[in-house]
Amino acid sequence: MLTPNMNYSHLKSSYLFYNIAQKTKAYLAEHPDTHLYRMGIGDVSLPLCDAVIKGLHAAADDQSKADSFNGYMPECGAPFLRTAVADYYRTRGVEVADDEVFISSGASDELGDILDLFDRSNRSLIIEPAYPAYVDANVMGGREIVHLPSSRSNGFLPLPDGDTDAELIYLCSPNNPTGAVFSREQLKKWVDFANAHGSVILFDAAYEAFIEDADLPHSIFEIEGARTCAIEICSLSKTAGFTGTRLGYTVIPKELKRNGMTFNDMWVRNRTTKTNGVSYIIQRAACEVFTPEGQRQIHENIAVYKQNACTLMQALDKLGIWYTGGRNAPYIWMECPNGMGSWDFFDKLLNEAQIIGTPGEGFGKCGEGYFRFSTFGSPEDTKTAAERLVALLK
Amino acid sequence: MLTPNMNYSHLKSSYLFYNIAQKTKAYLAEHPDTHLYRMGIGDVSLPLCDAVIKGLHAAADDQSKADSFNGYMPECGAPFLRTAVADYYRTRGVEVADDEVFISSGASDELGDILDLFDRSNRSLIIEPAYPAYVDANVMGGREIVHLPSSRSNGFLPLPDGDTDAELIYLCSPNNPTGAVFSREQLKKWVDFANAHGSVILFDAAYEAFIEDADLPHSIFEIEGARTCAIEICSLSKTAGFTGTRLGYTVIPKELKRNGMTFNDMWVRNRTTKTNGVSYIIQRAACEVFTPEGQRQIHENIAVYKQNACTLMQALDKLGIWYTGGRNAPYIWMECPNGMGSWDFFDKLLNEAQIIGTPGEGFGKCGEGYFRFSTFGSPEDTKTAAERLVALLK
Repeated sequence: MLTPNMNYSHLKSSYLFYNIAQKTKAYLAEHPDTHLYRMGIGDVSLPLCDAVIKGLHAAADDQSKADSFNGYMPECGAPFLRTAVADYYRTRGVEVADDEVFISSGASDELGDILDLFDRSNRSLIIEPAYPAYVDANVMGGREIVHLPSSRSNGFLPLPDGDTDAELIYLCSPNNPTGAVFSREQLKKWVDFANAHGSVILFDAAYEAFIEDADLPHSIFEIEGARTCAIEICSLSKTAGFTGTRLGYTVIPKELKRNGMTFNDMWVRNRTTKTNGVSYIIQRAACEVFTPEGQRQIHENIAVYKQNACTLMQALDKLGIWYTGGRNAPYIWMECPNGMGSWDFFDKLLNEAQIIGTPGEGFGKCGEGYFRFSTFGSPEDTKTAAERLVALLK
Repeated sequence: MLTPNMNYSHLKSSYLFYNIAQKTKAYLAEHPDTHLYRMGIGDVSLPLCDAVIKGLHAAADDQSKADSFNGYMPECGAPFLRTAVADYYRTRGVEVADDEVFISSGASDELGDILDLFDRSNRSLIIEPAYPAYVDANVMGGREIVHLPSSRSNGFLPLPDGDTDAELIYLCSPNNPTGAVFSREQLKKWVDFANAHGSVILFDAAYEAFIEDADLPHSIFEIEGARTCAIEICSLSKTAGFTGTRLGYTVIPKELKRNGMTFNDMWVRNRTTKTNGVSYIIQRAACEVFTPEGQRQIHENIAVYKQNACTLMQALDKLGIWYTGGRNAPYIWMECPNGMGSWDFFDKLLNEAQIIGTPGEGFGKCGEGYFRFSTFGSPEDTKTAAERLVALLK
């Protein structure tokens, strides 16, 4: 008799977005034709930029003719795109070799797949509040999870201390859901800890393009020592509006080794066994993101979301409400007013201002009392939502 | 100190396609400007059909405008494509529900990912000769592999007997590399075995579109009892030339349960945790494959490859060489002439007829003495190669 992976029976049901959807549905049933201001799910609203659209059409044309048709792609990524990504790192002063870059279908896919490189006996440290999939992927793998709660007192940016003990360390900076960003000095402490303990850092840099302060690191490889302890996982989902188009990239330095095994070699073997690479069409179009014109266009879109963030931050400043994020991240993490619980605040915003956000409790217990706004909505909606927020809470 | 997944150290180096590439390179260095007849790797040569190309352009246009832009797709597949696949099954008399269909990035990706559903204590039965990734993915997972050698005496279609004992059973029909296809009666024996032993069959149906004999099953779900013991993994790679475009689908019946766990539910949870779905653009284009016009066009392309198979089969018939495949599969698996070893035969074909095929030994020990031809080359090359084969071996 076959035995299923019984770790799945230990998964907690994920009520967060389901509950939001149910409450929204119920509200709309009672109030049909009401316009809702949706700032809950972190999905982009602007279409792909022109450069990428042109790349998609060009790639489709390539696939229509025998002499330009592409069959199986190299499993670790098209050479043209691996080079483009390595060059992109170089513009920020980070040297990575083309064959240290792996093309993926996106950060969430990669964060799930890459756990195959690590023995199940390793403990995974997850800073909370956290993206729920970090936890669930480790539960599925039967790994022990070390929860590291963060709070307003450390700006939601906790550092390792004498009690910290884990082999696999998740760092997400700029953070989802809090929008907090580690400084170089803070990241250096994590890198030093990982090197001292032989731990490996999984650095989720999906939101790096939203950083505007020049002194904040976009990549963990800007930190000395990271090449012996870190894997960086990136995505075009928020950078270039690829949430539904799907492309990401991962950097695994060749110096990253444990117990005689080189993780770059292991990942090559994993990819050549368990994939046949990412679609030529998507890789060809993604390449346009890294051209000067593509960079100009995606930053025009990012500027729209950043203006949304400013609009919301101004409203919170006016109200004297504490928050993180917004300035260097597409999320704003605010304290619920008057000590309200995060689901109570959700209900209040929905019922009294027709605004939808995400209750902090959904990202872990220590998120209770906080609330996340996504800044990916339309400027018009965000402006009205900010006005309603001020009117409601002033 | 982090422990890597040390199962990777038990992987054997995969020399097959590397060795072929090295030998080819060496030959071309000595004989520059020589045209080689490449019938080794199973990659398609015809471009995507017009219906799919139109779908790609339409999808790119959708992504260029805010009102038709698609962000995050449902993780288990776009509803329009799940319905199209379920309807495709219905045309062959197989009822599957839309939510039993999962859209993937291709069969190789899915065959790697889906092992997450099964405990590592299960033994995996692999019929050899086999697609090398079946073995490697199980070695990575630390699973014991039960090798079931097949041979000319059973037409490379072995059946379970009193000694058969494994919890996970790989069946690939039409088979890569042998091109052999299980009959309904033969598949029924495997289904009955799996149900009696509580095993689960992973049925790789990537080549089903090449079946032309009306009595051969395209899907394991044509067999009574399969819904309680099988998962079917399919791909558009060979069906519609998607090797470099990437799309597949998987059917997990809701009746498939073991130890109180329902695999369809588990896979929903896996996909919602570890992916953000397949690119809208690729799903939109793949949908065109399942329209009447798309089916007509892809079968025009398949007919070209089938004509290649006929050309090669006629040559082998003329030479009196035993083979399987070709008629209902895009591969031909021939006995090497005069008891030659498969690498010796590779060298002879390359050096004396400039033909490249794949030595059977690369698919497992019992493949020694056999040789695989892919029929995905150009008709002109295949015709000349067949003539050279006859001239060389007559």
